[in-house]
Amino acid sequence: MSDLIQTERPRPGVLLVRLNRPDALNAMNTDLIEALHAVLAEVRHDSEVRALVLTGNGKAFCAGLDLRGYGTPPGAAEGEGRPQAGLRVQQHIASLVEAFRGVRAPVIAAVNGAAAGGGMALALMADIRIMADTAALHASFIKRGLSNCDIGVSWLLPRMIGFSRAAQILLTGRSVDAAEAERIGIVSSVEPADRLLDAALETAEVIAANSPFGVWMTKEVMWSNLEVPSLRAAIDLENRTQILSAMTKDHREAVHSFLEKRPPVHRNH
Amino acid sequence: MSDLIQTERPRPGVLLVRLNRPDALNAMNTDLIEALHAVLAEVRHDSEVRALVLTGNGKAFCAGLDLRGYGTPPGAAEGEGRPQAGLRVQQHIASLVEAFRGVRAPVIAAVNGAAAGGGMALALMADIRIMADTAALHASFIKRGLSNCDIGVSWLLPRMIGFSRAAQILLTGRSVDAAEAERIGIVSSVEPADRLLDAALETAEVIAANSPFGVWMTKEVMWSNLEVPSLRAAIDLENRTQILSAMTKDHREAVHSFLEKRPPVHRNH
Amino acid sequence: MSDLIQTERPRPGVLLVRLNRPDALNAMNTDLIEALHAVLAEVRHDSEVRALVLTGNGKAFCAGLDLRGYGTPPGAAEGEGRPQAGLRVQQHIASLVEAFRGVRAPVIAAVNGAAAGGGMALALMADIRIMADTAALHASFIKRGLSNCDIGVSWLLPRMIGFSRAAQILLTGRSVDAAEAERIGIVSSVEPADRLLDAALETAEVIAANSPFGVWMTKEVMWSNLEVPSLRAAIDLENRTQILSAMTKDHREAVHSFLEKRPPVHRNH
Repeated sequence: MSDLIQTERPRPGVLLVRLNRPDALNAMNTDLIEALHAVLAEVRHDSEVRALVLTGNGKAFCAGLDLRGYGTPPGAAEGEGRPQAGLRVQQHIASLVEAFRGVRAPVIAAVNGAAAGGGMALALMADIRIMADTAALHASFIKRGLSNCDIGVSWLLPRMIGFSRAAQILLTGRSVDAAEAERIGIVSSVEPADRLLDAALETAEVIAANSPFGVWMTKEVMWSNLEVPSLRAAIDLENRTQILSAMTKDHREAVHSFLEKRPPVHRNH
Repeated sequence: MSDLIQTERPRPGVLLVRLNRPDALNAMNTDLIEALHAVLAEVRHDSEVRALVLTGNGKAFCAGLDLRGYGTPPGAAEGEGRPQAGLRVQQHIASLVEAFRGVRAPVIAAVNGAAAGGGMALALMADIRIMADTAALHASFIKRGLSNCDIGVSWLLPRMIGFSRAAQILLTGRSVDAAEAERIGIVSSVEPADRLLDAALETAEVIAANSPFGVWMTKEVMWSNLEVPSLRAAIDLENRTQILSAMTKDHREAVHSFLEKRPPVHRNH
Repeated sequence: MSDLIQTERPRPGVLLVRLNRPDALNAMNTDLIEALHAVLAEVRHDSEVRALVLTGNGKAFCAGLDLRGYGTPPGAAEGEGRPQAGLRVQQHIASLVEAFRGVRAPVIAAVNGAAAGGGMALALMADIRIMADTAALHASFIKRGLSNCDIGVSWLLPRMIGFSRAAQILLTGRSVDAAEAERIGIVSSVEPADRLLDAALETAEVIAANSPFGVWMTKEVMWSNLEVPSLRAAIDLENRTQILSAMTKDHREAVHSFLEKRPPVHRNH
């Protein structure tokens, strides 16, 4: 595996994933994105990973897209024109959104430093965000002659903090520090920088101790129902999912352990 | 009427509905849900009820589904299999969402104590929530081998507090105390436990003093337009509704009373 | 141009638009709405306007619809009935929503005083809101025998502050003061009344200094993607928009100025 992404398993059921281009402030190029995809593809078949923590090595979380050293995304055609090449790059980066969503284990972004442009998008596509008190989010495309609507940000941010706050941030292109990010609900909590990783791993452990099927279904149904306009249709999905959940060994073990007043022991999916 | 639900009319235009299974922490079984449906069906034809306050007797608001003593929901078929039976139970509970929405009078949940699992869902399906400072919400299915997406929660909660905060709560399965519930916008206000019911009744009185048609339309259109993706289509519904409202006796009385500098006297629908 | 709307260009790229019916608390009638439409139509073809500040002259921001002196909106048919006439008035006011959205330059509402009914709607349809500490929002239709769902409010407000808070405000018809409006996210900031206009102009200047194409696209894509249920479809729009942005002179100038360590000089669209 590429050394652009480092992984370890610091706690039971928890995979720690580190972006490892510290000299480039972890800016994303083709190789880093491919390496991240490779990790996620493995995790998709690894039932022992029940929560995933994503962080950056060095000062930054992720400086966004590496505009100069991006490289060529896979599948480029000989002699393709600028629109095709551009669309390929855009879709390559944006493919991370679906890859994150496709992993059963929730992804916790531990935002250790600057998350700028595509790096902010990377934080927003995680299921949960925890942030160092020294970190900040930078919606900076608009200062570079580009649109601040990129890699899901225009859809995700208003659904996290409301359209009004999102519009002010994205139209001005101003930064959002950790305290504000917590206050308005972009991140769940802010921690001293040297406590950040422990805090993220603790949240990951709480999730890993929940029933694996329940966590998987909660993640999957929440994302689906965020896209479903109709409450009734959303409940239809919930109803069927809950019946499946009630038929799992997870549920049986949860009920038995509850009656026996002991913690549940969930085997993997 | 079943004594599992108690009703009284403590103030003009206000119906107080009490869940009355205190020994079971007001856990919902078939009989309680049917009794609640019966009350809502009556209210649907009772133009004197202009606001409804829902609370729990005893320590808890509602402990959720009574898993052991749920009973058989109406319409069960002989020999039906587990998926059918399961779906029937799920749809039976979830039918409360549409029943609450179908009542013209806004429903104010006065959350007097623990609201867990389906009990949290019950609070969320109300139009307005007020909470005792000693109460808490418990998204606990995920600790019982089930999905935390149930009875509308996966759809409603992100639309109340944003996807980011909702995901952290539902994936970890942690509790939310009253102070946090108010801060992040799940409940409108927090009251000392012994003031809760009065506060809920006061809000109900404010609503009951508004024009009945206007309140009905505000409730109905808000819920509909929460499901409508298009702003333009939402405005189409608003426009037609407002013209209807302008043709009501309510509007005439509101204008006359305003010009005559007296409070309006709204007859019932 | 009608004197019901005053315009000036106090800073580079910034158009200040003042509602000028102070004796009527800037209540909207046919003439004022037509005058506002005329200004917006001009701005649509004026690439020098990169941000627009909307405020009210006198004590109020806007008292809403001028019920008595509304006049006849354009295109009324001889002998049309009450439903047609009513719908025409509703659609006339609501046409401002699309007109605001159709202007490339973001609209910043500087809410200098009371914003009531349709005046509150006018503030909500802007892209960004800044509010005087002495101002308040009044969702007061419901006190006048009408529905509080009007001119986009039932769709916009829940998407700004969550359904729970919006329902409590719109069903009770209570006012929202400046401090609360900021805390719950209706407005971006609150300023002392005598600082309000400067603060709004400063925000406008920040936006006007960003790349014009990027600002236009950020505004347009944010509004579109607020209506798009599917995250994937939203990203599709973002991707294509970003490629367009990357082909603009704006982007070239942004990159060059960055490398040359000087502020960008953006020519108009």
